[in-house]
Amino acid sequence: MRRNEFEVTREEEIEAFLSEMSFGFLGTLGEDGHPRVTPINYVYHQGMFYMHGSRFGEKMDHLAANPAVSFSVAEEYAIIPSYFTDPLMACPATSYFKSVTASGRVEIVQDLEEKAAAFTLFMNKLQPEGGYAPIDAANPKYASRLRGVAVLRIVPDRITAKFKFGQNLTEDKREQVLQGLDARGRGKDRETMELIRSSACPHMQQTLAPDPYSEEE
Amino acid sequence: MRRNEFEVTREEEIEAFLSEMSFGFLGTLGEDGHPRVTPINYVYHQGMFYMHGSRFGEKMDHLAANPAVSFSVAEEYAIIPSYFTDPLMACPATSYFKSVTASGRVEIVQDLEEKAAAFTLFMNKLQPEGGYAPIDAANPKYASRLRGVAVLRIVPDRITAKFKFGQNLTEDKREQVLQGLDARGRGKDRETMELIRSSACPHMQQTLAPDPYSEEE
Repeated sequence: MRRNEFEVTREEEIEAFLSEMSFGFLGTLGEDGHPRVTPINYVYHQGMFYMHGSRFGEKMDHLAANPAVSFSVAEEYAIIPSYFTDPLMACPATSYFKSVTASGRVEIVQDLEEKAAAFTLFMNKLQPEGGYAPIDAANPKYASRLRGVAVLRIVPDRITAKFKFGQNLTEDKREQVLQGLDARGRGKDRETMELIRSSACPHMQQTLAPDPYSEEE
Repeated sequence: MRRNEFEVTREEEIEAFLSEMSFGFLGTLGEDGHPRVTPINYVYHQGMFYMHGSRFGEKMDHLAANPAVSFSVAEEYAIIPSYFTDPLMACPATSYFKSVTASGRVEIVQDLEEKAAAFTLFMNKLQPEGGYAPIDAANPKYASRLRGVAVLRIVPDRITAKFKFGQNLTEDKREQVLQGLDARGRGKDRETMELIRSSACPHMQQTLAPDPYSEEE
């Protein structure tokens, strides 16, 4: 299927967000049948998420038996107080955020060269300034370490994104929120103002993915 | 069982962290048997987590049938590059963070007065400056809104916390990390230095909960 221009733009926004963020939350099914959520650093590369950990060892058999996972990355940009748009009722209080959630299955990376490639992706992302010998499975010092660590890859069936920046507001209310943020001017308020303005484009509203976040509104 | 002084301190640290943070990640079991992770604002109060959402409606039956959940809150303080402690190998690269993860069951809050109390907790946390009429189930304007929104409460069976700030390092390496952070001085580096220093206390090491985070190390 040929992609339209808008979808490509969205994919670029999702990739940019996933590159900015360094960790997410992995949802797995525990041995007891209960869900388990684990915060973990990740790299997103060519449509897949990579993660690693020495202590995954004991979870490996379990993940092999229950490879279905969910993985979510989110950042809050601004808490929006109710009085920005309503002098009386608390109801409009909310938060603006970006979130990306993938559902799919875990694959365990066994090959040492693939592991080395995954760690190279991690280092490129989290230590782009370099300062280490290239990670190479042929280097005996690295090879022993690579054997001792588990590398996972999430292959998503579906990725949903929600960037919530007041798209549901009337023009009047949106202006009130922008004025409130401008007057407050803390943290990411300025950046949030830009995101509100760019999200107000009708194309953006139309293509919002189903809400993976839950709040009163 | 009488609690010792140290455990109380830890509980206070966990509560302080949960008060600072505004959202976490809820792990549930989807109707298809797959885990699902949802970012969501929360309030932690008297040992329970409260959350709300208009769109929980369709998930309610499902959560009532599968009330087992996991909930995780985490913040990354600093990416620690390998060259802080090793001029050659990439292996020491890591991140320092705080994370708290609860496992337990969800209860659906039905009573309007309890719902009003939960929203009051939310407003006290996220809009402490006030600027709204008190949320009261006897106020007809609030009552209709309270009926339309779902409120959940997580009753944890277990809460584990990990505050990872180089407790595993030798004194020499810890000093190198402190020097590296001091020279870099970006983001939360100064705060991280304080946390490294206070985490180096032997009592802290001894009582760390099992690792809910996974990284090579």
